[in-house]
Amino acid sequence: LTTEEAAAIAEACSAIPEIEPIAEAAAHAGTLAIPLVVDLRARVARRSETAAAKVHLGATSQDVADTALMLQAKVGWGLLTRDASHLAARLADLARTHATTPMLGRTLLQPARPITFGLKAANWLLALEAATGRVEREAADALVLQFGGAVGVLDAEEGGGGAVAARLADRLGLGLAPAPWHARRDGIAGLASALAILAGTLGKMAGDIALMAQAEVAEVFEPALAGRGGSSAMAHKRNPTGCQVARSAALRAPHLAATILSVLPQEHERGLGGWQVEAPVLADLFGVTHGALVAMRDVADGLDVRPAQMAKNLAAASVGDDTAAASALVRKILAARASEP
Amino acid sequence: LTTEEAAAIAEACSAIPEIEPIAEAAAHAGTLAIPLVVDLRARVARRSETAAAKVHLGATSQDVADTALMLQAKVGWGLLTRDASHLAARLADLARTHATTPMLGRTLLQPARPITFGLKAANWLLALEAATGRVEREAADALVLQFGGAVGVLDAEEGGGGAVAARLADRLGLGLAPAPWHARRDGIAGLASALAILAGTLGKMAGDIALMAQAEVAEVFEPALAGRGGSSAMAHKRNPTGCQVARSAALRAPHLAATILSVLPQEHERGLGGWQVEAPVLADLFGVTHGALVAMRDVADGLDVRPAQMAKNLAAASVGDDTAAASALVRKILAARASEP
Amino acid sequence: LTTEEAAAIAEACSAIPEIEPIAEAAAHAGTLAIPLVVDLRARVARRSETAAAKVHLGATSQDVADTALMLQAKVGWGLLTRDASHLAARLADLARTHATTPMLGRTLLQPARPITFGLKAANWLLALEAATGRVEREAADALVLQFGGAVGVLDAEEGGGGAVAARLADRLGLGLAPAPWHARRDGIAGLASALAILAGTLGKMAGDIALMAQAEVAEVFEPALAGRGGSSAMAHKRNPTGCQVARSAALRAPHLAATILSVLPQEHERGLGGWQVEAPVLADLFGVTHGALVAMRDVADGLDVRPAQMAKNLAAASVGDDTAAASALVRKILAARASEP
Amino acid sequence: LTTEEAAAIAEACSAIPEIEPIAEAAAHAGTLAIPLVVDLRARVARRSETAAAKVHLGATSQDVADTALMLQAKVGWGLLTRDASHLAARLADLARTHATTPMLGRTLLQPARPITFGLKAANWLLALEAATGRVEREAADALVLQFGGAVGVLDAEEGGGGAVAARLADRLGLGLAPAPWHARRDGIAGLASALAILAGTLGKMAGDIALMAQAEVAEVFEPALAGRGGSSAMAHKRNPTGCQVARSAALRAPHLAATILSVLPQEHERGLGGWQVEAPVLADLFGVTHGALVAMRDVADGLDVRPAQMAKNLAAASVGDDTAAASALVRKILAARASEP
Repeated sequence: LTTEEAAAIAEACSAIPEIEPIAEAAAHAGTLAIPLVVDLRARVARRSETAAAKVHLGATSQDVADTALMLQAKVGWGLLTRDASHLAARLADLARTHATTPMLGRTLLQPARPITFGLKAANWLLALEAATGRVEREAADALVLQFGGAVGVLDAEEGGGGAVAARLADRLGLGLAPAPWHARRDGIAGLASALAILAGTLGKMAGDIALMAQAEVAEVFEPALAGRGGSSAMAHKRNPTGCQVARSAALRAPHLAATILSVLPQEHERGLGGWQVEAPVLADLFGVTHGALVAMRDVADGLDVRPAQMAKNLAAASVGDDTAAASALVRKILAARASEP
Repeated sequence: LTTEEAAAIAEACSAIPEIEPIAEAAAHAGTLAIPLVVDLRARVARRSETAAAKVHLGATSQDVADTALMLQAKVGWGLLTRDASHLAARLADLARTHATTPMLGRTLLQPARPITFGLKAANWLLALEAATGRVEREAADALVLQFGGAVGVLDAEEGGGGAVAARLADRLGLGLAPAPWHARRDGIAGLASALAILAGTLGKMAGDIALMAQAEVAEVFEPALAGRGGSSAMAHKRNPTGCQVARSAALRAPHLAATILSVLPQEHERGLGGWQVEAPVLADLFGVTHGALVAMRDVADGLDVRPAQMAKNLAAASVGDDTAAASALVRKILAARASEP
Repeated sequence: LTTEEAAAIAEACSAIPEIEPIAEAAAHAGTLAIPLVVDLRARVARRSETAAAKVHLGATSQDVADTALMLQAKVGWGLLTRDASHLAARLADLARTHATTPMLGRTLLQPARPITFGLKAANWLLALEAATGRVEREAADALVLQFGGAVGVLDAEEGGGGAVAARLADRLGLGLAPAPWHARRDGIAGLASALAILAGTLGKMAGDIALMAQAEVAEVFEPALAGRGGSSAMAHKRNPTGCQVARSAALRAPHLAATILSVLPQEHERGLGGWQVEAPVLADLFGVTHGALVAMRDVADGLDVRPAQMAKNLAAASVGDDTAAASALVRKILAARASEP
Repeated sequence: LTTEEAAAIAEACSAIPEIEPIAEAAAHAGTLAIPLVVDLRARVARRSETAAAKVHLGATSQDVADTALMLQAKVGWGLLTRDASHLAARLADLARTHATTPMLGRTLLQPARPITFGLKAANWLLALEAATGRVEREAADALVLQFGGAVGVLDAEEGGGGAVAARLADRLGLGLAPAPWHARRDGIAGLASALAILAGTLGKMAGDIALMAQAEVAEVFEPALAGRGGSSAMAHKRNPTGCQVARSAALRAPHLAATILSVLPQEHERGLGGWQVEAPVLADLFGVTHGALVAMRDVADGLDVRPAQMAKNLAAASVGDDTAAASALVRKILAARASEP
């Protein structure tokens, strides 16, 4: 590949191709990469026939597809990190503010012993931070360049494949795997599992709030937002719509993650039908998890807490009123968190 | 509701509303029905204030959502039925044509005893027809109107709810349930399971063909279609792209069906977060199942069968060559099928 | 096979072999059938060497395994049918008794409009009967003999395979498939899905009861059974243990069914690793579903219903008190059910 | 709690109770802990009535159940670590020995370009080590004591709960969580996901070997072990039984992990029906994953590799014969691994 050829390819790449005809051809071809490369090659050929022959050199369609997936996952990861951090701060506030606010602890959906609302919030916080930490860890491992060519031997350009890969990873802000990973999908599976755990963690918080927001319990309510939570049939209703979103996410996420776990047994160097399902499923998983996070962030931001009703429900249960241990535990949790690096 | 009011509502309904602002408002409201009803009411109000108050009378947002889902499912069902029937006819042709074409039967991915290619096709056919029959049965049960109002007591218009429901079901070409089914989702779950079984059945056929199309086996090949099955990196390749599509579907479908099974425990009269996940998941399930069906229909239509290579592989295995029982079984299967009503 | 040989085999079969050494050998062999046949053959050989050579004639290990699975499923089906019928009768009683007992209808876990407790019970009943009906239908289809030999061509005894199969099916009380179904597993998948739908239906009922049994709602309680529902730490507790069992089942069942859906794409005439997972998973699915059914049967049998508290919660919600439509719907549901054949 | 009372309890604990009556009572009680505590208390009471009242002090049944689960998981983890390490060493041997053994690389189940068998083994190795590393990380996080009492405030013994927990964790060889985790199950979910990823990774290796062991490919075979891989119907067969075990595991594991992901949304301080499903499911997940690991360890230990057949298949594909890049990549992978701490 000469410098001139490289320049011709780079220039053609700088223009965005027409999406629609490529998408249509992809459905027929079975992969997006083939019509994309055909289109690019045609555009390069207008400048240099020899350069056109070197478009996509050493790469295979799955290199393009996997790397694109990683770049999308990176954007999704950024959104999750930002919103999880916001929610964590808010939960820490709730834990602090209500460290000593007595309420009824409930087990097996029955009254048990007193806790404080701060302890409930602190537990949501611990779960959120553990789940977010796992997403960070898995994303840091998984977000790597794919560049291996047809059978993953990375032989682009007479042995220069390694150097090209390193430059490419650097330019794209992705990590470098120990070897092309066309048929080693554990990184994506780890990331998918971590997302599902985050979704489940948000679903737990949503479930607690929805249960406490039942009319007969009435201990917390979602913030009243204009146009949200109404009913098409009943003007009086204030539905826990944010909780609904997070619960739906927690119901879907395990199955989305399991789909990705199911395709780990790829055949040979690059499989038939397995890795091809990851992209839409991972996109859905990021979508529902981030949707749940935004929903619970908004719920936590304006959560309407009713300590008087909590006290009333606790008293009605006749299970004692000593919350010293609960309060102490909240303080311990918050202190440990503050002292972390 | 007077005749004039009904006419005013009907006229407003005959115009298609602007989709985008309603979709945007739905994301915030937590349901599509609320902004839709608001929009419709506003348009009716231009003709009659009293009619506007009666828009959506006796109905709830979930009535709209569930009925819309059923109408979509009905369209999807029609497509499946049409293409399954085409594929079945083609598989019957293959079974007939190759009733006595000897090939190696394989078990646990090892050579076993002789069969005929017609028997393999006949088994695909039996599985396809059983799976399609289940889809028919479940769709016939599941495709019913939802019309129950807020808590499913069907009290629209002072007790006339039943009559309205019957007319509505008739107009929409949907069945009538024994009672509103807001929190009884077994019909959808049955349909989803049936779709997943169909997808799995197609995945089995796809897997067999992909294994037989391995270069070392070379017994059948997908039809060569211009622009399909090529490789972005290797000009010589003829990838089993149709099989890839069906295998992908068979990998996703069990998890999509399981999602819908997971939301059966709806809370009380209408649940929080459960039924709300069904619509996108059922759409995906119809999409991947129909995609698999179309892919395998095209594969079967032009399947390139190589009896000589089948004979060669059979001989190499030294497991005998008596295929009389296999041929007789194919004839029996086809005869039983022909004699069905 | 002479009559004497057949008698020698039959006699050996009438003794139950030693289970433990066969089970141990099975783990190593990868199938139970091989050591079982070895053992049987040895015992037959003591009477007749020529008969010993004809043990397992025309059959393959999967014939034994699949037929055994069907016989087990048949027993499980019988238990389910019996207990579902008991529960249905009890739910019909509850619907009748409480047809006009007013209570608060709840949607999205918020107060909505009045219903009656009878309507809630009637909806549980409709869902139970629909789910049970699907189990019946699928079991009737699925419970068939497997007898096809190595590659499913049913050639036992020089073409007499069909007659042997018919006699065998009759003796075992199983149906006859149109052809051996070693690699057509749609029947098992349909049955598994139906079981999961039944489990989910019971989970819905369990969830409603657990929510109504919350101390702040207090509308129904599980029957107080000595030694059940207690707490190891809190003497005052009366946990909804029956509901716990059914909820657990409803959480596991979708994944068990999905496992069985996942293995539909069997390879060739008999697959590698797919059908081998069905037996333990189907056993678990029967186990958790039947466990849930027994639990909810006991809950329904002694359900402690509190109409006064229902009335109080309804009044507190200020959503009206007209339950005529709900009562009418209960009567309609019960009448339709009574008039069925 | 006096020293004498503690001694009385300790002595009673040192005897193993009769298992059967406790197990039977547990099925009725809904938890194992209640009959266990009843039994223990009765045995303590024979020595000291006051000590008997303090049995299970500050603890709840879920403390017992969760801690027992962690102790079992620890044993399972140890087995996995040992056998994974053995398999990794063997795969490294294969990669080294066959670093330059040419074979056909295959993509989408079609011939692609040359690789070496060593590269295939090196990729299995990389996947295995990544998966094992994740199990280590998750187990290290998840294997913590549960000790929180009824509502997780850790108030055993007038504020001494923290000290008791620390001693208990130390004695049991478990870690300490930042707070009781009755309703924060992310650790178990992370461990379950990691196990499923390991199972999937072994399933990929098993699938490759089973495909290469097809008679028409004949590149590798499972070791011939007496009594394994035979057929009840065909004496000539040598079935890939180890691969079958691992493929079955890879088919079940995603659904087992998804079950555990599904129960993350526990209600309140301790949930109803969710965490109760984890123990049997996690046990199955350890069981199938370890079974797969042992199976593939044995397969790798005696793998019968046929370089001549690999060369023949490669030549027949006419896709070139340059394996320099593949060999270089194997060396790079092994060198990077060797230089790790």
